[in-house]
Amino acid sequence: MTYQAPVQEMIFLLEALCGLEDLSQHPAYADATPETVEAILEAAGQFTGKVLAPLNAVGDRAGLGFSDGSITTPPGWKEAYQQIVEMGWNSPATPVDVGGMGLPMVVNACIQEMFNSANCAFHLCSLLTQGAIESIEGYASEELKALYLAKLVSGEWSGTMNLTEPQAGSDLGALKSRAVPDGDHFKITGQKIFITHGEHDLTENIIHLVLARLPDAPAGVKGISLFVVPKYLVNADGSLGAHNDLRCVSIEHKLGIHASPTCTMAYGDKGGATGYLVGEPHKGLAYMFAMMNNARLAMGVQAVGIGERATQQAFGYAQDRVQGVPPNGDNNGAIIGHPDVKRMLGLMRTKTDAGRILTLKAAAAIDRARYGEDQATRDYHQRRVDLLIPIAKGWCTEAAVASASLGIQVHGGMGFVEETGAAQHLRDARITTIYEGTTGIQALDLVGRKILRDKGFAAQELIAELRATLATMSLEQEMMPFYAELVGGLDSLEVAVGWLLEASEEERRALACDVLELFGITLGAFGLAEALQAAAARERDDLASRRRRTAFYFAHVLPQAKALGRFAARAARGAHLIEPSDLAIA
Amino acid sequence: MTYQAPVQEMIFLLEALCGLEDLSQHPAYADATPETVEAILEAAGQFTGKVLAPLNAVGDRAGLGFSDGSITTPPGWKEAYQQIVEMGWNSPATPVDVGGMGLPMVVNACIQEMFNSANCAFHLCSLLTQGAIESIEGYASEELKALYLAKLVSGEWSGTMNLTEPQAGSDLGALKSRAVPDGDHFKITGQKIFITHGEHDLTENIIHLVLARLPDAPAGVKGISLFVVPKYLVNADGSLGAHNDLRCVSIEHKLGIHASPTCTMAYGDKGGATGYLVGEPHKGLAYMFAMMNNARLAMGVQAVGIGERATQQAFGYAQDRVQGVPPNGDNNGAIIGHPDVKRMLGLMRTKTDAGRILTLKAAAAIDRARYGEDQATRDYHQRRVDLLIPIAKGWCTEAAVASASLGIQVHGGMGFVEETGAAQHLRDARITTIYEGTTGIQALDLVGRKILRDKGFAAQELIAELRATLATMSLEQEMMPFYAELVGGLDSLEVAVGWLLEASEEERRALACDVLELFGITLGAFGLAEALQAAAARERDDLASRRRRTAFYFAHVLPQAKALGRFAARAARGAHLIEPSDLAIA
Repeated sequence: MTYQAPVQEMIFLLEALCGLEDLSQHPAYADATPETVEAILEAAGQFTGKVLAPLNAVGDRAGLGFSDGSITTPPGWKEAYQQIVEMGWNSPATPVDVGGMGLPMVVNACIQEMFNSANCAFHLCSLLTQGAIESIEGYASEELKALYLAKLVSGEWSGTMNLTEPQAGSDLGALKSRAVPDGDHFKITGQKIFITHGEHDLTENIIHLVLARLPDAPAGVKGISLFVVPKYLVNADGSLGAHNDLRCVSIEHKLGIHASPTCTMAYGDKGGATGYLVGEPHKGLAYMFAMMNNARLAMGVQAVGIGERATQQAFGYAQDRVQGVPPNGDNNGAIIGHPDVKRMLGLMRTKTDAGRILTLKAAAAIDRARYGEDQATRDYHQRRVDLLIPIAKGWCTEAAVASASLGIQVHGGMGFVEETGAAQHLRDARITTIYEGTTGIQALDLVGRKILRDKGFAAQELIAELRATLATMSLEQEMMPFYAELVGGLDSLEVAVGWLLEASEEERRALACDVLELFGITLGAFGLAEALQAAAARERDDLASRRRRTAFYFAHVLPQAKALGRFAARAARGAHLIEPSDLAIA
Repeated sequence: MTYQAPVQEMIFLLEALCGLEDLSQHPAYADATPETVEAILEAAGQFTGKVLAPLNAVGDRAGLGFSDGSITTPPGWKEAYQQIVEMGWNSPATPVDVGGMGLPMVVNACIQEMFNSANCAFHLCSLLTQGAIESIEGYASEELKALYLAKLVSGEWSGTMNLTEPQAGSDLGALKSRAVPDGDHFKITGQKIFITHGEHDLTENIIHLVLARLPDAPAGVKGISLFVVPKYLVNADGSLGAHNDLRCVSIEHKLGIHASPTCTMAYGDKGGATGYLVGEPHKGLAYMFAMMNNARLAMGVQAVGIGERATQQAFGYAQDRVQGVPPNGDNNGAIIGHPDVKRMLGLMRTKTDAGRILTLKAAAAIDRARYGEDQATRDYHQRRVDLLIPIAKGWCTEAAVASASLGIQVHGGMGFVEETGAAQHLRDARITTIYEGTTGIQALDLVGRKILRDKGFAAQELIAELRATLATMSLEQEMMPFYAELVGGLDSLEVAVGWLLEASEEERRALACDVLELFGITLGAFGLAEALQAAAARERDDLASRRRRTAFYFAHVLPQAKALGRFAARAARGAHLIEPSDLAIA
């Protein structure tokens, strides 16, 4: 149940695959030299391993106290949160001038992964706050910024995102909450559900970012505005005023992330909660979407974190547990010597490693889209971000669920016993394919907005770039075993893009998740191959091990891409033609 | 949350694919005419849907009371169990002369599926009792049979199987419990873990079947004997005597099947529990293995049952939930119109349907192996049983976990909320790939004992038979779209068997689970195709729907077999070469 942060691997990936040195040349990241980053990651690794990781099972078992609208977090959580505030871990990527560490997103992603490995339910509080900070920093008035930003960045206050209503989940156009002008502010009324950390006892104030409709708002997604609605009103001098007209009505009893409060929030029961418009009216959804990439990436990172934790735990168990006689008698007879146990751990390890590379590449692209040298460079990286985000979110979260389930399997009967802790990882991971947009939503985003809308341009651009990378691999002996497979992978991505441009709407949608998986598996293979190439160039000690891990992924995971990729044949066979009535009981 | 038993589908499969009419010609099954069976299944469907299904969530939430060695089952369970005893549902396949219904195993499998769909935690009590009955009926002395069988068959008493010890799970050779002769009986001492329904309040006595070693026993698996150890000693007249020297020390806090007690049992704390030897000394494991096929099939059936329940629940939700705009505007805008939701439900529906066919074919083979007209016929069917059991257990249980997880996904955020009930199916299903032998154990059994030991004879026999079935399909227009794929599927099975005969031990074991999955997917495709062919021959109303479901499976599931099946290439790529040290954190 211990967790050891993979700091050395992260530093290797940051330097060899994500261009950390190059990024730190930019004035905004001047402090993010490789040496400083290494020190920061080491410190984060220590804190998450020693303080947060032991509180993970505590939170799962204790859950939350709920009484009269107030929530009590598990034993030890307040103290740990206080340390986060004091050490400045709450929002490391926020620029220095707003009180953050000013770290690149790609470094923040490493920190987020560690916090999620250690205690994902706990870390959600900071993740949501990071989202609120971005909304306010990006779109709110100077007055709102001055009043709210600093305390959100430090973590003295936390933030939430209030989107979902009972009838408005994936389809936010259906939301009904209302905002009526009232002097310099608005009166907000409505009910929001699934509000993560909507109420808790970790901070003295909670700043809700709430989507609602103004009286003159057009119907659908174009009539939604964004408001800051604090739990306690904030006086001009920053001190806290009266309790706002909002409350947590109930919390959900969930499969996992037991200690992360999932709240139903009631706004305006006594006439209207005081809220402040962020930016312009009716642009709330655009603002949300602008920060959606970061939020979705954070969920991909969370999934990698849970996958890493599950892998470490299963590895530890398999090293200790003696049962049966492995074919070669080493390992003191521990089950890790059994080829099938190695297979399960190999799937967990390599998909986690591949997912980490995918999320870090997406994060690095965010940094470059923000701080690239010219507009063309920034546009190029933004295209890459937009393309990679649904893949990183969709594929890494599905991989985490699979890994956590395999983690149980490695434990055998003990995996089904809650005390072991393996089951918690599956229960926690299971939300990641759902929130911030289900895998199905990610797939529609990938296929529709990210591939079709520009007629395959961004996707072809990526494929062409990977072909160029391949050309460099072709010169190296180390990469020979993987070369032909990677060519095949790129070919199947190209075929998929071509097919999408021709397919009917029904066909596309029916196979969209498989397109996403094809991209995830293939980009994962590329990431592992690139890491291997870089490890060879640097003559790293772990080269032989990395070669076997890469070969394992190519033998066990990549072949699935071939089966997925035959979209035209599968559509011709009727993949999309099943009818609702066919699905009823026989 | 309601459950409607698929009685009509079961009857169709029993008659069209499992030869029920033919089976009922045998004197042992004389009462199992299609008319009687239909009436029995209708009654079981009513009982499970109305009485047991509503108690499923009750049991999950209430869990078990445990105090001073005694266990309290959830509200309503005792009453429901009493109805089972009164109605004779406890052990329907037990012969009439021992008090059972004398139904074929294939009909019992249908009944088991319904009970598992309705309430798998509850049904485990009867399933374990059925195992105990088989052990006693098959191997115990007439005296033990006379004393124990009738009340176990009726369900007045329940039975358990005590195999696992802390150091002896998959490897029973390591077990340490001891049995010392003491007059006409033995004194049993030792600790057993993971004993399902080892203690409960549903019956007045519990009959434990316990594996232990005699003082002169050889080490390993050849020194294990089987004992009957009743909770209350039984007097010669059948009345209950003193409490035996055994007790439930603790129960596990588990991920799922919350209301099924998983007990740690202590035998002989006060000197030795009184036990009675079953059959001959040192043959306990052989007796256990003789009933292992039925026990493992029962777990495959349980998985199909949970998959069916999860599918029905997700289907119901998807019909009601309105969100977004499906591409064609029917279904009142319910999410079941979304192609990706149909894809998820299609995977759940078709894999459940295919799994049902697979389990019923295995069950029908058990009936024919028992009552075939001559030894050659019985041997032939026993080979088929032995080959199909690990596939039915391994593939159906993995499919159930996947289906239950998809069921959560169909529900979106609501799926993660426990009140919805979707999550329980995943939590419950998750044990099925573990108990009665993990998927890895099933795969080793398939590859080692069932394929290699007879040099591929039984596997080739099955493949040849399926080729003959294919020849009949080639003549029918209806089957044209599936013909080439089925030929390809059989070819890949044949290649797999050939590869296994050549592969190294390490290679075989590393890819054994994939061999199992290849067989499962391909046999599933065959089952669906045969059902379609039979439906066409009978001009059934559901023909068009069945054709689309079959096409869906061929477009979404069967292609995975191709990726799995390239064993030689995957082994050449190093699928088996990953080292334990490669799996540690980076």
